[in-house]
Amino acid sequence: MHKRESGTRAKNMAIAPIGVIHTPFKYAQGTPIQGIAGTHAEGVVEVHSDLIEGLRDLEGFDRLWLIYQLDRASDIRLVVRPYLDTTERGVFSTRSPARPNHIGISVVRLLTVDVNRLHVADVDMLDGTPLLDIKPYIPAFDSFEQSRAGWLNGKSASGVVADGRFEAGNGDTE
Amino acid sequence: MHKRESGTRAKNMAIAPIGVIHTPFKYAQGTPIQGIAGTHAEGVVEVHSDLIEGLRDLEGFDRLWLIYQLDRASDIRLVVRPYLDTTERGVFSTRSPARPNHIGISVVRLLTVDVNRLHVADVDMLDGTPLLDIKPYIPAFDSFEQSRAGWLNGKSASGVVADGRFEAGNGDTE
Repeated sequence: MHKRESGTRAKNMAIAPIGVIHTPFKYAQGTPIQGIAGTHAEGVVEVHSDLIEGLRDLEGFDRLWLIYQLDRASDIRLVVRPYLDTTERGVFSTRSPARPNHIGISVVRLLTVDVNRLHVADVDMLDGTPLLDIKPYIPAFDSFEQSRAGWLNGKSASGVVADGRFEAGNGDTE
Repeated sequence: MHKRESGTRAKNMAIAPIGVIHTPFKYAQGTPIQGIAGTHAEGVVEVHSDLIEGLRDLEGFDRLWLIYQLDRASDIRLVVRPYLDTTERGVFSTRSPARPNHIGISVVRLLTVDVNRLHVADVDMLDGTPLLDIKPYIPAFDSFEQSRAGWLNGKSASGVVADGRFEAGNGDTE
């Protein structure tokens, strides 16, 4: 486990969830490692009712970014063995939850908007995950089809599901 | 300005910056609204030195996600008039900084890695922005070329720069 230096660090930032993400996945074991990994699982993004006005115009988007808290992630590790590799990698070159700030980002497909409940598909987060932000997926800003992907080149996440390696309480040595 | 309900909300999350992003942009006025908006501005991502091990393997990636704190954003607005439109939109259907949690995400091009300093291009954040996370850009997870983009369809961010509308102290009425 990694320990923080104190000293000249910028001060901490307080973040409050804006809602909760409901998914079929109760445990990391068996959860797809990315939404596109093949299950097309559906979920519901429930936004706190005082924020409904902010959801206006979402219907026009095929996909959304969900920014969320990896609230059941293990302690911080700087080097991890990711699901798609057998070699240890620097955590910032992976999408592992065991990162210094437990923030996850995922693209989901928006199916319907029902007041403060967004029905979505391609979810890959655990049930009850605290939602921090929603942003529209905008291909002009977000889509780079030919971007070289380092150690991931040639690997496919299709059908790959998680085990418990990044869950709290399952810390191993770095 | 939007006020939070108390009550059944999940508890706040503490987040500590992992570094700082150096860019040419001292003020929102004139800053590109997205990294791909035409300036190809270069910057340096300085990661705290105790986290260097986590940067291993980044060199193989053409692009990175930077997750950062919009630390000079204005108070929260649920409805905003975005830079690329003349109509008010729900804040979650925009990339405006005036959102409930001041978290920004941007794709940057990785040029070189110099120990704990990542030289990057296509930056669109203000100089001194607190860095929260780095993730690899992985086309298989992140690239959806044909995703419909609602009110943004047919609009181009090319050459569009910010003004001060979303800066702290410039709050207007909703």
